[in-house]
Amino acid sequence: MKNTSVDPIKGFSKLSKQAKMEWLVQNFSDEPNESLQMLQGYWHALPEVQKLHDEFIENTVSNYYLPFGVAPNFQINQKMYTIPFAIEESSVVAAAAKAANFWLDRGGFKTTVLSTTKVGHVHFIWDGQDHAALSSFFSNYKDNLISSTDEITKNMRARGGGILDIELIDKSELETDYFQLAVKFDTRDSMGANFINSCLETIAKEWQSSIEASDLAGNVQIVMSILSNYTPECVVRAEVSCAVEDINEGSGISNKEFAEKFRRAIRIAQIEPYRAVTHNKGIMNGIDSVIIATGNDFRATEACAHAYAARDGQYRSLTNAEVVDGTFRFWLDLPLSVGTVGGIISLHPMVKFAHELLGNPDAEELMQIIAVAGLAQNFSAVRSLITSGIQKGHMKMHLLNILNQLEATEDEKAQIVEYFKDKVVSFSAAVEIFSKLRGIPVDQKVKK
Amino acid sequence: MKNTSVDPIKGFSKLSKQAKMEWLVQNFSDEPNESLQMLQGYWHALPEVQKLHDEFIENTVSNYYLPFGVAPNFQINQKMYTIPFAIEESSVVAAAAKAANFWLDRGGFKTTVLSTTKVGHVHFIWDGQDHAALSSFFSNYKDNLISSTDEITKNMRARGGGILDIELIDKSELETDYFQLAVKFDTRDSMGANFINSCLETIAKEWQSSIEASDLAGNVQIVMSILSNYTPECVVRAEVSCAVEDINEGSGISNKEFAEKFRRAIRIAQIEPYRAVTHNKGIMNGIDSVIIATGNDFRATEACAHAYAARDGQYRSLTNAEVVDGTFRFWLDLPLSVGTVGGIISLHPMVKFAHELLGNPDAEELMQIIAVAGLAQNFSAVRSLITSGIQKGHMKMHLLNILNQLEATEDEKAQIVEYFKDKVVSFSAAVEIFSKLRGIPVDQKVKK
Repeated sequence: MKNTSVDPIKGFSKLSKQAKMEWLVQNFSDEPNESLQMLQGYWHALPEVQKLHDEFIENTVSNYYLPFGVAPNFQINQKMYTIPFAIEESSVVAAAAKAANFWLDRGGFKTTVLSTTKVGHVHFIWDGQDHAALSSFFSNYKDNLISSTDEITKNMRARGGGILDIELIDKSELETDYFQLAVKFDTRDSMGANFINSCLETIAKEWQSSIEASDLAGNVQIVMSILSNYTPECVVRAEVSCAVEDINEGSGISNKEFAEKFRRAIRIAQIEPYRAVTHNKGIMNGIDSVIIATGNDFRATEACAHAYAARDGQYRSLTNAEVVDGTFRFWLDLPLSVGTVGGIISLHPMVKFAHELLGNPDAEELMQIIAVAGLAQNFSAVRSLITSGIQKGHMKMHLLNILNQLEATEDEKAQIVEYFKDKVVSFSAAVEIFSKLRGIPVDQKVKK
Repeated sequence: MKNTSVDPIKGFSKLSKQAKMEWLVQNFSDEPNESLQMLQGYWHALPEVQKLHDEFIENTVSNYYLPFGVAPNFQINQKMYTIPFAIEESSVVAAAAKAANFWLDRGGFKTTVLSTTKVGHVHFIWDGQDHAALSSFFSNYKDNLISSTDEITKNMRARGGGILDIELIDKSELETDYFQLAVKFDTRDSMGANFINSCLETIAKEWQSSIEASDLAGNVQIVMSILSNYTPECVVRAEVSCAVEDINEGSGISNKEFAEKFRRAIRIAQIEPYRAVTHNKGIMNGIDSVIIATGNDFRATEACAHAYAARDGQYRSLTNAEVVDGTFRFWLDLPLSVGTVGGIISLHPMVKFAHELLGNPDAEELMQIIAVAGLAQNFSAVRSLITSGIQKGHMKMHLLNILNQLEATEDEKAQIVEYFKDKVVSFSAAVEIFSKLRGIPVDQKVKK
C-alpha cells in the first residue's frame, strides 16, 4: 500500500469532484484507475440525482450503500405497516419481521405518544450579585423575548407550534455566574433543530442587549445558544402483551418458563449496566434503521435514548417486562425527536419512498412506528438469547457474507446454506465445508 | 396516497427481490411504476456487486445512499491522514476539515490507546445456598472453561489474542440467585462480537454441565450468554494543545477570551446533562461517520460512548478542556471497540477503499483515527457556538439542500450562494431571494 503520510493539501474543498477523486486515488491507492472506477461505479446513473446526493454534505466523492430492506406485517394500533430499514447488520430485518409476525397473532403493538415538548437553552454568564433582581427583570421581559422571534416563528405558529415557554434557571451554584434561559418548543412535524437554534440565537441577542440597556448591575456574556437533543418530555411508548398461555413461542420451553425467563432477562438489563448497554444497543438496531430510512438524525436519537437510560443515576434497560395475573407485558418508553418535513426528507428519493411506504405519517405517528421497530428488535433478541442463543440465528444470517468472502459460487452457496439448515454456523465450520466441497485443504490463512 | 392498512402477507422473505418490490409498490405507492424504477435506479450497475449488498441483510430491495466524503490534512502523531466520512448531515465534513487545518498549524493531534480489553458475560441463576462452595468450584474449574473454547479460539490465539480471564461475580443481592461469569477478551484486529458470543455460548454449556455433574447442591439455569458492548477497558485518548497566545482562531475575540470561553463551554457540558447530550451528539457526528465508512457498528459505538458518559452517575461531556500555565488543552477519552477485519469490512468495496485511504490501519490505529474525528468535530462545533453561533456555518452548508428543495437551477443556485456570502442563511430568507430572482410572489406554502 502507498505511504499515507502525504503532504498537506491547500484548498481541497475548492477542487472539483473529479480533481478530489484524482488526488485521493493518486495519493492513497495502489491501483488508482481501479479505485477511480470503483468510486464512480457507486454513483447514481442519473447525474442530476447524483448531484443532489453530492450536495448533502461537503467533499462528497461517492455514495456509501447501506442495504435498504423492509419488514411487513407490523400491526400497530390495529393498522398494518410495512417498515423500511436502512442497516448493514445481518439479522436485524429478519428479527424485526419475526417479531411482527409473532405479535400479529397476539393483538399487535399498541403505542401512545406521551409528550412532544422539545427544549433549547441560551447558556450565559451574568456576574451581578442580585439574582432576585435578574429573576424579576426576566419575568417582566419574557414576553419581549418571545416576540423577538415572531418573524422566525410565524410559519411554525401558523401550523400550531412555536415557543411554549421560557424559564430562567440559576445554575450559579454549579459554575460561577452561570445561568440559562430554557426555552420549550412545539415543532409540529419537523425535528426542529434549525428552527430552535435560530430562535435561541435571536433570543440570546435580545436578552443580552436588554440586560445591557437595563439598570441591572452586572455584565452578561452569552456562552452559547443551542437546542438540546435530550428530550425527556418528547416520549413515545410501544407495548405488547398477551396471556402467558398464548405465548407458544415454539422453541420448546413452557409458556410459563419463557415468560419468567424473559422477565428475568429484562430485569438483568435493568440492574447490570454491562448487559444494559448491549440490550439497548439491540433496541437501537431497530430504531436507527428506521430513523435513517426516514431521513432523520440517528446521532441525536442515540444520544437522547442513552442519556435517558441513565437518567436515575445508573445506566439501565430502556424496555420493561412484567408477568402479572397471567398476563405477559413488554414495553419501551423512548424519548424521540423526529421530523416528517425538513432536512433531507423531501429531497432524498429513498427517504420519500420510505415515508410513502409508511403512509406518509405525521411526526407523532412516525414516533410510534419507530418505537415499535425498537421493541420488536428487542423482543426477538431477548427471545433468541434465552432460548437458542444469539449465535444460531445471527450466524445463519451472516453465512452469506462469509461465503461471499470465500468467493463461493452461487451453486456452492446454495449447497452450503442447505448443509447448515440444521447446524450452528461458525466461520471455521463454513470454511471447512467450503474446502471439502471444493476438494481443497482448509486454508487457515483465510481472513477472518 | 394508498391506504397502508394492507392485509398481512405470508412468506414474504421467500419471495424473489423482484416480487418483493412489486408487492411493495402495488400496495403502497401512488405511482407503482415510477417507484419501481426509482428503487432500481439506486441499484449498482454491476449485478454481482448489487448481489453482494443485497446479501448483507434480509429483504433488501435497494440501497440507501449515505454521502461518502473525505477530510484531508489530519496530522495524528506526526503522520498525515485523509479521513473518510459516511454521513448525511451538512457541515460535519466541513467542520472536521476546518479543525484538521487549524491543528495542523499547531502541532496536530496526539493519540494513545489506553487499553484494549473486551468483555462478555454468561448470566446465570443458581439457587444453591453455599456461595463459597460455588466460588471454590469455579476456581478449580476455571481452566476447563477456558480450554472448552480451544477450538474456537485457536486462530485468535495464533494472532496473539484470546481469552484473558474469567471471573465469577455474585450479583444475588441485586436479583435472587443471579450470578455472572465475566469473561475478558483480547480480539486483536477484529471487533470480535461473533468470536466472543461463540466463546460465551460454549463456556455456558460447559459451565452448566459441570455444575450438574458436580456435588454442588443447587440448580443452574443459563439465562443468556452475550458480549457486552460496554468496554470501559478498551479506551482511546485523542488530544490537542497549544499555547494560548498561538490560538489566533480568527473570529475576532482575544486568544485569552477564546481559551477561557471554550473551557467554560466544556465545563457547562460537564455539569448540565441537557447540554452534554447535544455536545456528545456532536462528537458522535464525527465518530459515527468514520465508524460507518470503515464498516464498523455505530450502534455499538454509540451505546458504549453514552453509557461511559454517565459512568459516575451523571451524564456528562466526553471531552475535557483546561487552560493551565498559558497552555490550552482539549481532549477526548472514548471507549471504542472496532475491527479492521471481519464483518462486512473485506466485502464492501467502499469500506475497503476507506481502509486503503487510511493506510490499512490495524484496530489500534483505527481507534486513534476515529477518536480524532470526534475531537475535531467537537472542537469546530464548540468554536462556532462560542463565536459566531452554530447557525451561520450550518445553514450556509444546508443552503444547497434548501435550493434543491425549491428546484433552483444551477444558475440560480450560484447567484443565491453568492448573495448569502456575507449574510446569515435562513429558510425564509432563501425563499425570499429565490422568489425575487424569479420575479414570483413568495410562496408561503413551500414545504419546510
